[in-house]
Amino acid sequence: MTVLERLIGNLSRLPGLGAKSASRIAYYILRADKNYVRALAGDMLEIKEKIRNCPVCANYTVEVPCSICSDPQRDRGTICVVEEAKDVSTIESTREYHGLYHVLLGAISPIDGVGPDDLRIDKLLARVKEERTTEVIIATNPTVEGETTAQYIIQRLRTLEVKVSKLALGLPVGGDLEYADRLTLARALQGRNRQ
Amino acid sequence: MTVLERLIGNLSRLPGLGAKSASRIAYYILRADKNYVRALAGDMLEIKEKIRNCPVCANYTVEVPCSICSDPQRDRGTICVVEEAKDVSTIESTREYHGLYHVLLGAISPIDGVGPDDLRIDKLLARVKEERTTEVIIATNPTVEGETTAQYIIQRLRTLEVKVSKLALGLPVGGDLEYADRLTLARALQGRNRQ
Repeated sequence: MTVLERLIGNLSRLPGLGAKSASRIAYYILRADKNYVRALAGDMLEIKEKIRNCPVCANYTVEVPCSICSDPQRDRGTICVVEEAKDVSTIESTREYHGLYHVLLGAISPIDGVGPDDLRIDKLLARVKEERTTEVIIATNPTVEGETTAQYIIQRLRTLEVKVSKLALGLPVGGDLEYADRLTLARALQGRNRQ
Repeated sequence: MTVLERLIGNLSRLPGLGAKSASRIAYYILRADKNYVRALAGDMLEIKEKIRNCPVCANYTVEVPCSICSDPQRDRGTICVVEEAKDVSTIESTREYHGLYHVLLGAISPIDGVGPDDLRIDKLLARVKEERTTEVIIATNPTVEGETTAQYIIQRLRTLEVKVSKLALGLPVGGDLEYADRLTLARALQGRNRQ
C-alpha cells in the first residue's frame, strides 16, 4: 500500500467522507501549498494535545476552567444542559444565550449500555445546589435518547428549587408545512402560541 | 481564534467540504483515537515530502521513474494521454489498460491562459518518436478544454506514424435513457455500434 492509498484510507474514516471524496481530498493535498498542509496537519495534532473537557461544564477548552465558565459577563444563574461538547458551540452560534453550560457527555441509551450514572447528571445537581442556579434549560436532542435523558433530569431536578425548561419543538424557520414530518407538525400544533 | 476554529477553517478549504462538514470532522478528530490522528496528519505531510511527478510520464510517484514506466510487463507500445496525474489511478482502477501513460498536467484553456506550450505535448511527441509507440489513446476529459486539447494533439500526431484513438462517448453503464443529457445521448447515437 502506498502512502497515498494509506492517506485515502485514513481520510475515508472521517465522518461524511466516502472513498471518492477522500481520494479527491488526497489529490488536492498533493497539489496544495506546503504551508497550508503543514498548518492543517499541525492543527489536527494540536487539538489532540491541547484541548480537553472543562472540569466544570465539560465543554471543550484549552484553559481550565473554560472561557465560558470563567466569564464574569455570563448569566451565572442559568445552566443550559446539552448532550455533547460540540452542542455548546451550536448554541453559542445563535448569540441568543448568555448563561452557563453543562455537558452530559452522552444521553441515556439502554441499547448502547448508557445509563444515568454514565452521564454527568450528579454533577449537574451538585452545581445547581452549589451555584444557586435559578433556571436549567434542557437542550438535549429531539430524539428518543435525548427525550429520555431530559425526562430523567427533570425528575431529578424536582427535588430542588429551580425553574426547569426545555427547548421548543416545532417547524424549522424557513421550512414549508408540506415538507414537515408528521411528528414535528404534531409538536408544532401542541406547542402553538396564542397571538 | 482558537485552534479548533483554525482547524475548521483549514478543513473547509478542502474540496467538497463546507463549514458544517468541516466542523463535524474537527469534532470527530477531537474525540478520535490519538494514533489515528497522528497517522492521518503524518500521511498528509509524507505525501507532500515524498510524492513527485515521474520525469517520464508525470504520474505521481515516490520512485523515479514511476512503477508503471519501469514495469517490463506493461505494453510499451501504447501510451494513454490524460490531463491530470490523478486520472492515471482512475484508468488503472478499470484493470482494462496495460500500456503506459502520459500526463499533460492540464488542458488547453485560453480563459485560464493555458496554451499548448504550457502542457507536456512536445514531450509526448518526443516519446512517441523515441519509444516507437504504435498507439496513442487520448483520454482527456469530455469537456470543451479536454476536447480542444485532444484535437490539438491529434493534429500534431498526424505527422508521425502512430495510430491515434480517443475514449468512446456514450451512455453511462447502469444509467437510464431518461436521465441522460441531450449531448451525451447525441454522442451515443453518433457512436452507435452495429450488432
